[in-house]
Amino acid sequence: MGGNTFGHLFKLTTFGESHGSAIGGVIDGCPSGLKIDFDFIQQQLDRRKPGQSKITTQRKESDTVEFLSGIFEGVTTGTPIGFIIKNDNQKSIDYEQIKDKFRPSHADYTYWAKYGIRDYRGGGRSSARETACRVVGGAIAQLLLNMFSISVNAFVTQIGGISSDKHYSTLDFNSIYKNEVRCADAEMMDKFKSLIESTRKDGDTIGGKICCVIKNVPSGLGSPVFDKLEADLAKAMFSINASRGVEFGSGFLGSTQRGSEQNDEMFIGNGKIRTKTNNSGGILGGISNGEDIYFNTAFKPVATIMKKQTTVDVNFNEVEITGKGRHDSCVLPRAVPVVVAMASIVIADHILLNKTSKLKSIV
Amino acid sequence: MGGNTFGHLFKLTTFGESHGSAIGGVIDGCPSGLKIDFDFIQQQLDRRKPGQSKITTQRKESDTVEFLSGIFEGVTTGTPIGFIIKNDNQKSIDYEQIKDKFRPSHADYTYWAKYGIRDYRGGGRSSARETACRVVGGAIAQLLLNMFSISVNAFVTQIGGISSDKHYSTLDFNSIYKNEVRCADAEMMDKFKSLIESTRKDGDTIGGKICCVIKNVPSGLGSPVFDKLEADLAKAMFSINASRGVEFGSGFLGSTQRGSEQNDEMFIGNGKIRTKTNNSGGILGGISNGEDIYFNTAFKPVATIMKKQTTVDVNFNEVEITGKGRHDSCVLPRAVPVVVAMASIVIADHILLNKTSKLKSIV
Amino acid sequence: MGGNTFGHLFKLTTFGESHGSAIGGVIDGCPSGLKIDFDFIQQQLDRRKPGQSKITTQRKESDTVEFLSGIFEGVTTGTPIGFIIKNDNQKSIDYEQIKDKFRPSHADYTYWAKYGIRDYRGGGRSSARETACRVVGGAIAQLLLNMFSISVNAFVTQIGGISSDKHYSTLDFNSIYKNEVRCADAEMMDKFKSLIESTRKDGDTIGGKICCVIKNVPSGLGSPVFDKLEADLAKAMFSINASRGVEFGSGFLGSTQRGSEQNDEMFIGNGKIRTKTNNSGGILGGISNGEDIYFNTAFKPVATIMKKQTTVDVNFNEVEITGKGRHDSCVLPRAVPVVVAMASIVIADHILLNKTSKLKSIV
Amino acid sequence: MGGNTFGHLFKLTTFGESHGSAIGGVIDGCPSGLKIDFDFIQQQLDRRKPGQSKITTQRKESDTVEFLSGIFEGVTTGTPIGFIIKNDNQKSIDYEQIKDKFRPSHADYTYWAKYGIRDYRGGGRSSARETACRVVGGAIAQLLLNMFSISVNAFVTQIGGISSDKHYSTLDFNSIYKNEVRCADAEMMDKFKSLIESTRKDGDTIGGKICCVIKNVPSGLGSPVFDKLEADLAKAMFSINASRGVEFGSGFLGSTQRGSEQNDEMFIGNGKIRTKTNNSGGILGGISNGEDIYFNTAFKPVATIMKKQTTVDVNFNEVEITGKGRHDSCVLPRAVPVVVAMASIVIADHILLNKTSKLKSIV
Repeated sequence: MGGNTFGHLFKLTTFGESHGSAIGGVIDGCPSGLKIDFDFIQQQLDRRKPGQSKITTQRKESDTVEFLSGIFEGVTTGTPIGFIIKNDNQKSIDYEQIKDKFRPSHADYTYWAKYGIRDYRGGGRSSARETACRVVGGAIAQLLLNMFSISVNAFVTQIGGISSDKHYSTLDFNSIYKNEVRCADAEMMDKFKSLIESTRKDGDTIGGKICCVIKNVPSGLGSPVFDKLEADLAKAMFSINASRGVEFGSGFLGSTQRGSEQNDEMFIGNGKIRTKTNNSGGILGGISNGEDIYFNTAFKPVATIMKKQTTVDVNFNEVEITGKGRHDSCVLPRAVPVVVAMASIVIADHILLNKTSKLKSIV
Repeated sequence: MGGNTFGHLFKLTTFGESHGSAIGGVIDGCPSGLKIDFDFIQQQLDRRKPGQSKITTQRKESDTVEFLSGIFEGVTTGTPIGFIIKNDNQKSIDYEQIKDKFRPSHADYTYWAKYGIRDYRGGGRSSARETACRVVGGAIAQLLLNMFSISVNAFVTQIGGISSDKHYSTLDFNSIYKNEVRCADAEMMDKFKSLIESTRKDGDTIGGKICCVIKNVPSGLGSPVFDKLEADLAKAMFSINASRGVEFGSGFLGSTQRGSEQNDEMFIGNGKIRTKTNNSGGILGGISNGEDIYFNTAFKPVATIMKKQTTVDVNFNEVEITGKGRHDSCVLPRAVPVVVAMASIVIADHILLNKTSKLKSIV
Repeated sequence: MGGNTFGHLFKLTTFGESHGSAIGGVIDGCPSGLKIDFDFIQQQLDRRKPGQSKITTQRKESDTVEFLSGIFEGVTTGTPIGFIIKNDNQKSIDYEQIKDKFRPSHADYTYWAKYGIRDYRGGGRSSARETACRVVGGAIAQLLLNMFSISVNAFVTQIGGISSDKHYSTLDFNSIYKNEVRCADAEMMDKFKSLIESTRKDGDTIGGKICCVIKNVPSGLGSPVFDKLEADLAKAMFSINASRGVEFGSGFLGSTQRGSEQNDEMFIGNGKIRTKTNNSGGILGGISNGEDIYFNTAFKPVATIMKKQTTVDVNFNEVEITGKGRHDSCVLPRAVPVVVAMASIVIADHILLNKTSKLKSIV
Repeated sequence: MGGNTFGHLFKLTTFGESHGSAIGGVIDGCPSGLKIDFDFIQQQLDRRKPGQSKITTQRKESDTVEFLSGIFEGVTTGTPIGFIIKNDNQKSIDYEQIKDKFRPSHADYTYWAKYGIRDYRGGGRSSARETACRVVGGAIAQLLLNMFSISVNAFVTQIGGISSDKHYSTLDFNSIYKNEVRCADAEMMDKFKSLIESTRKDGDTIGGKICCVIKNVPSGLGSPVFDKLEADLAKAMFSINASRGVEFGSGFLGSTQRGSEQNDEMFIGNGKIRTKTNNSGGILGGISNGEDIYFNTAFKPVATIMKKQTTVDVNFNEVEITGKGRHDSCVLPRAVPVVVAMASIVIADHILLNKTSKLKSIV
């Protein structure tokens, strides 16, 4: 109940603080016989790691994953997959000055309130560094989804007040990791990048939005009532640092509509049951209907800014604080692979869960 | 893993179909010694039940809850609280015509795809009737939250394209159940109601938005990483039928902002650590900070419309379908108590979870 | 965490007190498409219910199960199966005298210590009456196991100091429910019955042992390490009232042996991997090996005796108490169907769990 | 659901194979503020590690635990405690000869049947080496139990056909780790040791029994019905390699008795509710009553013997096999700290679970 495990059957447990010796995790419930593509996993990690480009933090971490168990001769054995990622760059000295201060809109105060103690170095457990472990779990989930030809893509669609309004079907997902912003709309890449850079020059940070599209999901995934597919996906998204909103299909816009606008009429296409539109975002009653699943996640701006702010310390004094050191001025580019990872884990998990829903598929 | 249980320590399991003999549930993990106010519970159910006003479905259900266990001489005993709500009004004949047709934007097809069989009467398990059981569980959670002086309120803030933009602090929560729309903004009540009525006359339905405000939550609730307080609340909201979007604090709007706008500076107020603004919505790093928790949930319009639509049947024929019978043209008014119930369960659950976070509070 | 749910994927939640209006439960995770044989389920309940014969309690309960959900036109739909069993015979007046006294070796004091309140009528939640709900869940599990030709049988092998030492392979399982003791050894039936009757005449009670044999379990069931098949079976057995010991295969006797005596050598029989002996009881490393699973469960004598005993009351006075009313003098005959039920749930659960262990069986 | 996690609130997840680079684990749910005595933890590991004495395997492993997270300045922070233990001695060459053979009464065949693949080196995941991680988790649980003055002791009471019949109250628990057998009965130490040594000289192995005594457990621990305290303890014991039987209190012997012999009469002693005898082993109705909890666990002899045995290989040929290399001839001495560890985890877990059972203890 410590809240460090995610998933029903395909389960990821993570551990580790930003400035401890290592972070790591355990994947339990991955079926045996899955061939592990280590290069693919490292590629996913590289997409998240700091110091990749001018618009991300300059903290250097190699983010090299070391697998300790569960894989034998390159194939999963069905036993738990333990892994660690060493923390190369533990500049704890940076953090002495904030040891006793609670940074505004960070988790410093809330961890202290909950536990009475906190590893203040780099945010400790609340650091987004933890998400590297999710990328490892997600990469293995993706390898599993590959067996079902399911693809999971995510990309930035909004930075601050600027947004890309093209429908995802018109975008080239292959372009996502070819630009530093991780955007799939060629027209917006430079605009997004410029906005991030100008914000950084101001010593400020900026929020934005990521869209995730999951294709080729079979119908039938998701449990009714509480473990609805969108409920599990939303939980996954809201578990990512700085996320503040999630919407599926037509989402908030759809809430302004009438049923006659929103409803997705059905037809038979190539012998399959299909919908003419997909305002529902591929999920009805908590269960996938075979159409694309897509959803947006909104991220608030990074809390650490290079401007003076008023805050308090552990002794209940009001004090001033100014951000220092190496920080992202926009979390979106590095959050993209985390969104993919978490979404992949949810879909992989529900693929497994759905294997026992019908008697005729188990006898 | 059937997905019919919600919660970590305070757990609600529900069962039952729209047109079976009864629906019901089990609340496990409620502490002993809680005095049960049966009138309060029934009042919550009455707020959700059909047939309350002109703008809700005319289906008649008494929605009387019958407790079978776990309560002795009016007080919880710590053992599971089992309850049932009988289905009075099982007009199954209404549903024969849709037995083989999949209604657009309903869960008919997805349940069939998942299970190969479905109780087609009134949507079966996918019917919002199931939410009555959540209201029972939520009412008991509210009684528990009363012990901590925590209040949970929800109210409609948008119907279709019309919305109430007043800050919640200016609203009178006591007015919520005094108007049929369950809105707290006196200026908007009639407008919302008119829009619902005119939509119904068109044989159409309409979506909207509900805001939920939770006051007096102590700091420290929520588990870091995966079971963040907002992650569990979001899962709760997305488990409610027809919900399509959730945002906490400044939410999607906050994603357009800079850190210097979004950040909540801190101060000492009455000897307590406070924030000057509350863009974060009372949760930082997944843990409550003592400020008000507030979030919006977007609901799509009801899928059943009184207009002709194209769809398919179980034999893969394309057919036409037109809604008949007693249906809500707007789900929002009746969803309000369900939002309150689910939010209350999450907070009660995390109150219990947090009891073991510090050694000094358990020795 | 209230501890009223059992199972990983095939989950049974029970509720209800001995003298409330009803007991009941929810089975979640049963695959859709399973044909329900209601007569079979009732037959299992009849085997457990009180008042069946002279050697069981004379309390009369019809123990009729009423299914409320999850079954449509006689077939499971994949949604939760809710059910209740009404308590016909609520002679609460019987219990007024023990309202404030803690009966020796009963759960009266421990519930009071844990919860500070207890429904003292008939033992409340701690009454073995709760096991009727397990029999319902177990009967549905058995119907599922029938699809895999797996059989689960249990029978009394010891009453007090008398035991049946024949190997189970020499016994006729069809005879079990043809004698009141539920023994499969024709030579011992009368001896067991006589011992129970003479004990009852003395106002005393007596313990014993039940053997359970599960045939045709495929190899591969059980999760390594913590959820070993025997660990889950043992937990199931120790969750039954009055059980005090469990042993698998050669069990305690095997602990006196050498490896050369205990080891089960392997051979190929009819093209299958087999063992020559089965001291292991069909489970190795927590996983079934395809041989018969068999284990013994020891039950202590019923705590309620018709003799004067010294005890204490809620006011910490030492008092005397003498059992009154209708009680079993030996719990074994009625525990047999409960052992079968719980074992069936564990095997059904692991059948489902095992469906996702190998990639090649899910793609 | 991979079965590699144990516990409800205090949760241990383990990973790792005998001959991988490391084994390890994650403890989630340990309260913050617990001072970690690293020497104590290492001492527990040293008690389990191989190569300690003549009567245990000569395989050399330093079994040094390395903590990676969750502890800051020597104190737990409430975040997950990740740890690894490197495998020093990976003589994989030893195992090439058994790569394709299934060793009798080992888990070789069952893992293969379940997963279709196995890390055959040293038993892989099924190796008792995994229990080192339990000892780490158990040691931290013990540190937590120390805060409540609860002690957990275990000791060998039987080797093969020889047993120590003294009541545990007459034994000196301080002597347990002063003798190689981990026995607390001075008269039996040499006899046990001699039997183990003579068995080893025969190239054979031998089983035995361990008693565990838990003192000063408060009344009220354990959840009714399915998560009874003895059910969780039994599951813990049966999850340990080679265990085949568990009995609580008077156990199997008690099943031969009458209620008048078995029942524990109650009295008031020093103002507390006590029982005159303790045949129940400190647990009634699944809940602790404040008396000593004690139980026996039977272990079968180690499966690897230095004698020729008949078995089969992966190609379904019947073959012969003879044990080679470094193996324990009796697992009991090294199983003692594992029994202590698992029992400690269960009690710590239920201490936490019980913190929310009563409303008055949480408001």
